[in-house]
Amino acid sequence: MARIVFHAGTVTRTDRAALLKQTGATVWFTGLSGSGKSTLAMALEKELIARGHAAYALDGDNVRFGLNAAPKLLTEVRGYSAEDAARFGLGFGAADRAENVRRIGEVAKLFADAGLFALTSFISPYRRDRDAARAAHERNATGPLPFIEVYVNTPLETCEGRDPKGLYKQARATVAAGASAGFTGIDDPYEPPLNPEITFDATAHSTADGVTAILRYLEEKKLLG
Amino acid sequence: MARIVFHAGTVTRTDRAALLKQTGATVWFTGLSGSGKSTLAMALEKELIARGHAAYALDGDNVRFGLNAAPKLLTEVRGYSAEDAARFGLGFGAADRAENVRRIGEVAKLFADAGLFALTSFISPYRRDRDAARAAHERNATGPLPFIEVYVNTPLETCEGRDPKGLYKQARATVAAGASAGFTGIDDPYEPPLNPEITFDATAHSTADGVTAILRYLEEKKLLG
Repeated sequence: MARIVFHAGTVTRTDRAALLKQTGATVWFTGLSGSGKSTLAMALEKELIARGHAAYALDGDNVRFGLNAAPKLLTEVRGYSAEDAARFGLGFGAADRAENVRRIGEVAKLFADAGLFALTSFISPYRRDRDAARAAHERNATGPLPFIEVYVNTPLETCEGRDPKGLYKQARATVAAGASAGFTGIDDPYEPPLNPEITFDATAHSTADGVTAILRYLEEKKLLG
Repeated sequence: MARIVFHAGTVTRTDRAALLKQTGATVWFTGLSGSGKSTLAMALEKELIARGHAAYALDGDNVRFGLNAAPKLLTEVRGYSAEDAARFGLGFGAADRAENVRRIGEVAKLFADAGLFALTSFISPYRRDRDAARAAHERNATGPLPFIEVYVNTPLETCEGRDPKGLYKQARATVAAGASAGFTGIDDPYEPPLNPEITFDATAHSTADGVTAILRYLEEKKLLG
């Protein structure tokens, strides 16, 4: 092992940027279930990494089974009491959705602060919650972090037509039976971004078009180093 | 901008390792308040980055004011109702400490999965909570992630003698007045790791010694690429 020559002080954003050759940013994908958010985010992640840019995608797969687990999972996997699981676990009510988006925003912020591209793909239906995530990036302790909102505005009919997991069908059936499904686009609102950095119409354009548009934006903003 | 040649599929751990020249790991520092955990973690982070290794330290500064904020902060900064803030915000009771450590463990896991060295420095006093963080790393969806527990075993007398923020003094006064302080080492237990990967005695060794020992361990385990 090389001799250790100690470096005083703490690591700065400049140190991280020098190592990673980029300064980090959050790219926040929002849109209906089935809109193509995750497909676009995954394609962007793949492309960024192929070009030598550190990136990490946060999505339902790695967040909903970990950090933002449902009460049931906290009891079964972590041994939480029913009371603690109900308190900290997240369902799909408005407060739970807000907290889900808040935690995701905070984690994305940490990744961006570390110098990576954090790519988040969650429905994140409420404008207030997304704006709060943006605000958290702006007041980041080591200085503001770029927050790029990508509105994947695939129309409801298209999303419902795809319905890869049968979630819309299930929600329609629930509502038809007179119950509440709490499903975005069916009986829970989706509030489109008012000023997204990028809007992607997945009915008129391919995933490749979307990745190209986002890369062009990142390049224009000098975020690709 | 270079022409886009699309890369099929999703990003793998191998892709990340090829880019970052390392496979990622969590180094989990545990010990009493004032034991020197953060000093050691910061020095390690600085050294890793100086040697070209992507690393990110999670500590009270970037977690307790964000992801794991107290109820008061959730109300003041995020506009949470008193009820939601009390539910999701974290204090210092046993359940809150468990959830604090759980969230930190999940975020460290994401950073390690992204290929970085995640360095966490929190008292994390309960063995069960630390072991659960380790277990989460072992059952990570993309394959097990290294979890390296560093026990900073500075004796209580030394920590209390340092008391840079006056926290011990305050806790002693609270307890002397007949109230509960819930302060680790005073009236709340610290459960030392039974099998930590590394034990660091900060009374007998310098921070440089500690960093050297950890780097040697990482090198032995082929984690430095």
